[in-house]
Amino acid sequence: MMNTTQSLAGTAEPARSALDCLLRPRSIAIVGASPQFAKVNGRPLKHLIEKGYTGRIYPVNPKYPEIAGLACYPDVVALPEAPDLAIVALPARDVEACIAALGRRGVAAAVIFSSGFGEMGAEGKQIEQSLRACADAHGVLICGPNCLGFVNAFDNVYATFSQYADGDTGAGPVAFVTQSGAFGTAIAALVRQRGLGLGYFINTGNEAGVTFSDLMLAVIEDPRIRVAAGYMEGMRDGPGLVRLAQRCAELGKPLVLTKVGRMAAGVRAAASHTGSLAVEDDVFDAVLRQHGVLRARNEEQMLDMLEALCSDRVPQGGGLGIVTQSGGAGVMMADRAEELGLEVPPLAPQTQVALAKVMPAFGAAGNPVDVTGQFVANPDLLLESVVTLLADPQVHVGIVWLQLMAAHVDLLVRIFCQIRDRTDKPFIICWVAAPPEAVRRLRAEGMVVFGAGERAVEAAAALVRHRQTLRVAAEQRAERAALAAAVERVAAETRGNSFCDGVQSTVQATGWLHAAGVPMAPVTLVRHGDEAVAAWRTAGGPVVLKIESPDITHKTEIGGVLLKLNDEAAVRQGFATLMQRAAVARPEAQLDGVIVQPMAAGQLELVIGVQRDPGFGMVLMVGLGGVLVEVLKDVVFRQAPFSEAEGLRMLDELRMRALLDGVRGQPAVDRGALAALLSRLSVWAAAMAPWLDELDLNPVLVGPTGPVGVDCVMVFRGQKAG
Amino acid sequence: MMNTTQSLAGTAEPARSALDCLLRPRSIAIVGASPQFAKVNGRPLKHLIEKGYTGRIYPVNPKYPEIAGLACYPDVVALPEAPDLAIVALPARDVEACIAALGRRGVAAAVIFSSGFGEMGAEGKQIEQSLRACADAHGVLICGPNCLGFVNAFDNVYATFSQYADGDTGAGPVAFVTQSGAFGTAIAALVRQRGLGLGYFINTGNEAGVTFSDLMLAVIEDPRIRVAAGYMEGMRDGPGLVRLAQRCAELGKPLVLTKVGRMAAGVRAAASHTGSLAVEDDVFDAVLRQHGVLRARNEEQMLDMLEALCSDRVPQGGGLGIVTQSGGAGVMMADRAEELGLEVPPLAPQTQVALAKVMPAFGAAGNPVDVTGQFVANPDLLLESVVTLLADPQVHVGIVWLQLMAAHVDLLVRIFCQIRDRTDKPFIICWVAAPPEAVRRLRAEGMVVFGAGERAVEAAAALVRHRQTLRVAAEQRAERAALAAAVERVAAETRGNSFCDGVQSTVQATGWLHAAGVPMAPVTLVRHGDEAVAAWRTAGGPVVLKIESPDITHKTEIGGVLLKLNDEAAVRQGFATLMQRAAVARPEAQLDGVIVQPMAAGQLELVIGVQRDPGFGMVLMVGLGGVLVEVLKDVVFRQAPFSEAEGLRMLDELRMRALLDGVRGQPAVDRGALAALLSRLSVWAAAMAPWLDELDLNPVLVGPTGPVGVDCVMVFRGQKAG
Repeated sequence: MMNTTQSLAGTAEPARSALDCLLRPRSIAIVGASPQFAKVNGRPLKHLIEKGYTGRIYPVNPKYPEIAGLACYPDVVALPEAPDLAIVALPARDVEACIAALGRRGVAAAVIFSSGFGEMGAEGKQIEQSLRACADAHGVLICGPNCLGFVNAFDNVYATFSQYADGDTGAGPVAFVTQSGAFGTAIAALVRQRGLGLGYFINTGNEAGVTFSDLMLAVIEDPRIRVAAGYMEGMRDGPGLVRLAQRCAELGKPLVLTKVGRMAAGVRAAASHTGSLAVEDDVFDAVLRQHGVLRARNEEQMLDMLEALCSDRVPQGGGLGIVTQSGGAGVMMADRAEELGLEVPPLAPQTQVALAKVMPAFGAAGNPVDVTGQFVANPDLLLESVVTLLADPQVHVGIVWLQLMAAHVDLLVRIFCQIRDRTDKPFIICWVAAPPEAVRRLRAEGMVVFGAGERAVEAAAALVRHRQTLRVAAEQRAERAALAAAVERVAAETRGNSFCDGVQSTVQATGWLHAAGVPMAPVTLVRHGDEAVAAWRTAGGPVVLKIESPDITHKTEIGGVLLKLNDEAAVRQGFATLMQRAAVARPEAQLDGVIVQPMAAGQLELVIGVQRDPGFGMVLMVGLGGVLVEVLKDVVFRQAPFSEAEGLRMLDELRMRALLDGVRGQPAVDRGALAALLSRLSVWAAAMAPWLDELDLNPVLVGPTGPVGVDCVMVFRGQKAG
Repeated sequence: MMNTTQSLAGTAEPARSALDCLLRPRSIAIVGASPQFAKVNGRPLKHLIEKGYTGRIYPVNPKYPEIAGLACYPDVVALPEAPDLAIVALPARDVEACIAALGRRGVAAAVIFSSGFGEMGAEGKQIEQSLRACADAHGVLICGPNCLGFVNAFDNVYATFSQYADGDTGAGPVAFVTQSGAFGTAIAALVRQRGLGLGYFINTGNEAGVTFSDLMLAVIEDPRIRVAAGYMEGMRDGPGLVRLAQRCAELGKPLVLTKVGRMAAGVRAAASHTGSLAVEDDVFDAVLRQHGVLRARNEEQMLDMLEALCSDRVPQGGGLGIVTQSGGAGVMMADRAEELGLEVPPLAPQTQVALAKVMPAFGAAGNPVDVTGQFVANPDLLLESVVTLLADPQVHVGIVWLQLMAAHVDLLVRIFCQIRDRTDKPFIICWVAAPPEAVRRLRAEGMVVFGAGERAVEAAAALVRHRQTLRVAAEQRAERAALAAAVERVAAETRGNSFCDGVQSTVQATGWLHAAGVPMAPVTLVRHGDEAVAAWRTAGGPVVLKIESPDITHKTEIGGVLLKLNDEAAVRQGFATLMQRAAVARPEAQLDGVIVQPMAAGQLELVIGVQRDPGFGMVLMVGLGGVLVEVLKDVVFRQAPFSEAEGLRMLDELRMRALLDGVRGQPAVDRGALAALLSRLSVWAAAMAPWLDELDLNPVLVGPTGPVGVDCVMVFRGQKAG
């Protein structure tokens, strides 16, 4: 989508990438510049001057000889040099010609404020398509159109008309990229309110050129950036997002994303039964989790996560220690921790002894530790309690809860600084109804301050999850080559093959899956009653008969399945019945015969599916079958291919996972065997991506000897774009 | 627990209740008063003087002749009159004697700050018990001990040492009662930050005298109070809480409660299988919902609800209209509304026509309405869009989302005032990163302002729920007499009976339930093989045999159930097998014989239970049976007795309620029949409260002819206290 190797024409310096020219320009032209600084086309110049941009600035507008003391050029051709970046603030109808002129003048990058493109319906989409083609043809990297532009606060680049730039824009460790201008500006302002500081603030607009992921991938490489935050409204580039997540994990920088559109609006109209359970957002959510992204459900949660993650301390485990001034607040926070799977560990004996020495008689010395309000009379009480608690080997992150104390701000700031200096574990201060001065001073000391207990716990949980993310990501990196090799092995076997589109025969599909290491119940295709009886004899026990036809995917709907047949007459009659039913119900269908299969049994019924996601490619789904999948929709997704370890994590995300451990006296199922099945199927699906359109294994029965796929519908549909 | 008819000794005026003396005293003694205004015993006097309390104030302390210009009395005896209220700020050891002296002096009420009572373990509890007895004996109504006291801001009564009183304490429409001092003070300060204003702020402490519910019941009668808010850490008085909820509903005043302790810490150790699913908090939560209380999960949600509920507009339906400046924010809010069951209705044709007239081409005219940022150039755009949307007949509450706009505060305040004047529907302003001045001015105009979209939606949902609550409460009031009469009819039948403790015989229990209108599968007790065979013949089909013994409640555990017996030999042999198995497994058990029962069938399996809750008395539970109840714990509770309408609401709260509508081609179950069963069982359970300890109907099978109880365990255990 972009040309990252684009070099600056006509310079003697080493070539800079177009992205570098965009984000860190040494010179900027403002096409359509205005001396009215309150207007959209006047604001960038105002900000660049006021905030001290040190590069060269070239206003371009035939109406003015100069603006704000700067020479103003009548057009792009007249510019004295090819600037790194052009800001385009023109009516939509003039944009394409401008981009062409910029290209001819050798300008590498442009940010386009103008609206009137893809956001305006079919006609606008066509205009945008034409703009994109023009930019590609002229080698201009474009950001936008229909965007507020961006801020690079490190280098005082204010290529924006966002209200955010009106206030203080001191640089900080957060890079924030947003697809929405209005909401993004609000979030940027909230980040500032928290005192965190944005290093980059970028609005991507319609993304006719650089995408959300392109821009984020560029800015996270900046060593001054510690945390990446994104706000998304739609996903245009799944593979880019996965690369971004993987790169963030490599760099050890957390990536926090908020994406709107969680509910049914995004439901996919899939043909197959299990496919219809896939709500796009569920897939998005699962793939993000798979790749270590921290998803925030709204802007407040994003800000809470950012605040905690901007701290430079990472917890070395998942144990939460709580010190509070109110027993009730302690209970509330411990409850929330339990809900989030965060441990509030009992304290080690030595910690209890040490705490007993500093605690007043009426405080409780468990975890949470209740120090009551007595620390005002005796400040050491709070200091020593927190330091002692954080020294416990099972405590990895702390929360200190207090309220008001307007008269004791100096004292408390001093205590918290002492705590910080006496421990290297991360801790969060939760100060309810805090004096604003206290919050300001503590944040200036680099401390993390929240105003509500449950939010502090959620932030602590995000810290712990970030640490787990880094561990899993390292594991995934180690597995990547082996998985790629496994996919390549399968792909090599099919190389040169050509497959027919449509529903694959059961015998063929079962054979392929079996060869891929997916345990499948054996199937025999029979074409008349005698063959059916022979197959039954071979099975040596009760069998199932199923009609076989590429045109009948939902066999039960036409009465196309007969269970537990176990004598010659029944089997013979069964064959005839199925062929007749199918002929009556679907006279147009091609009938290949009947599948004979030994009855399988299992204590648990799963559904496993593969589908081709428009964003993320081949995606696996596993769910608990029967009523549970239909009513509870207890399903989990993963992008293929993935390892057995990932398969285990997948199973762990099932809400009804307790069923895997066995209920009502049943033994636990072999999770390892199930995870292996999932992983192998994911490898096969990834290799078959050029042909496989969807696959349903429904049910997969899990019995004492492991899982076995009992029924499968496999559909191929040629190579697709993307 | 308190003496509400206590009159003031020695006055000629009409008798005032002790609660009135406590909350609205015309004279206050401060026992243990100090001239050091920063200390706990100095702060009340400081606040009373500074905030302009107009009643008489009597400091009591032998150390001082006067404090702050007021005569100080050496002891209670020396007081010139019996004050309405005494504030007791003495060491714990002196409190009881003080209360006795106050009683003798004719003081009706005392608030006790002192700690060192029930919160200090077993010894403290004993001291508190003695204090309580002393207060009762001397006719002194006590609030506390171990509390921060209270504020009645309407009458400038500051009987408190809470930090809350240090700031501005202007009276407002919220009454806030808290069991926690520290957390409560923080919440009170947050209420103030929102500009809402507390009329009453009361900390109940250990509740040795008046309870949370007593105090709340007293303050909600004040016509200046519009909303009741409570923070609880433990429930001491279930019936009082139910009375409070009912009274609030009668008055049309919302009751918002936060109670900590949502998680497993409160799990009840109940003997029976279904009973063990009951986490105390689930019961608390369900009974609160039953009686129309709005439960807030934490203090932030409580504040959000309070802010919305303090508005004097009530929505007349559940339709939410959204106007936004950002499409993404609109999607996020619509998603949240869907999650909360709030409708975001499509707009009526006339609304769409009217909106099209005022909307710019690039805004979307659906609901949410996206006005973009263009309204700054054209203010009428926002004004007319919102007024038009709110005029839609399907829209009952509105949210207007915008951000920043620091330069346009005057304009926007004016627009919102115009909107308010042109509609009588409630609307919430969600202004993200708003200039503080804007929030202040809008709140001063009586408008509701939030800073985050999802929170605004949650607040709108609380408004809608409050309206539903009032409707349901009116229905419940209308049903109350009939339910009480039904309970009395059953109670009359059992009057004079005496029952044996322990497990009741199956035949007896089934008979009682059947008579109460609960459909039960017929049972026959047989004592030898011949009788078993005869019972099978009578059944006319396959039967179940179950061992019958008051000592064996979990029959399956000893192999005490045989299914689907349908010939003479099997039935005869079955009888012998069961008697033998029971004799081997439980040699000490009394064996009454074997129950013969026709096999029942149903498409759905429920569990229904009754348990005696220590707080709320007889409580019914219904859940989806089998694996669903064991793993998903999909159960719902209600306090008995309740109506069929309540039974229907109960079924609606099951997470898997879709199963009741039939899946996989099954017909929907008869919800009315099920609700009738639940209601009748609740009436019977309420009548049997003196004897019934617990009852398990597990399973109840629901088939085409309605529900039928197949197995029941009924345990009696004499009359209990409370």
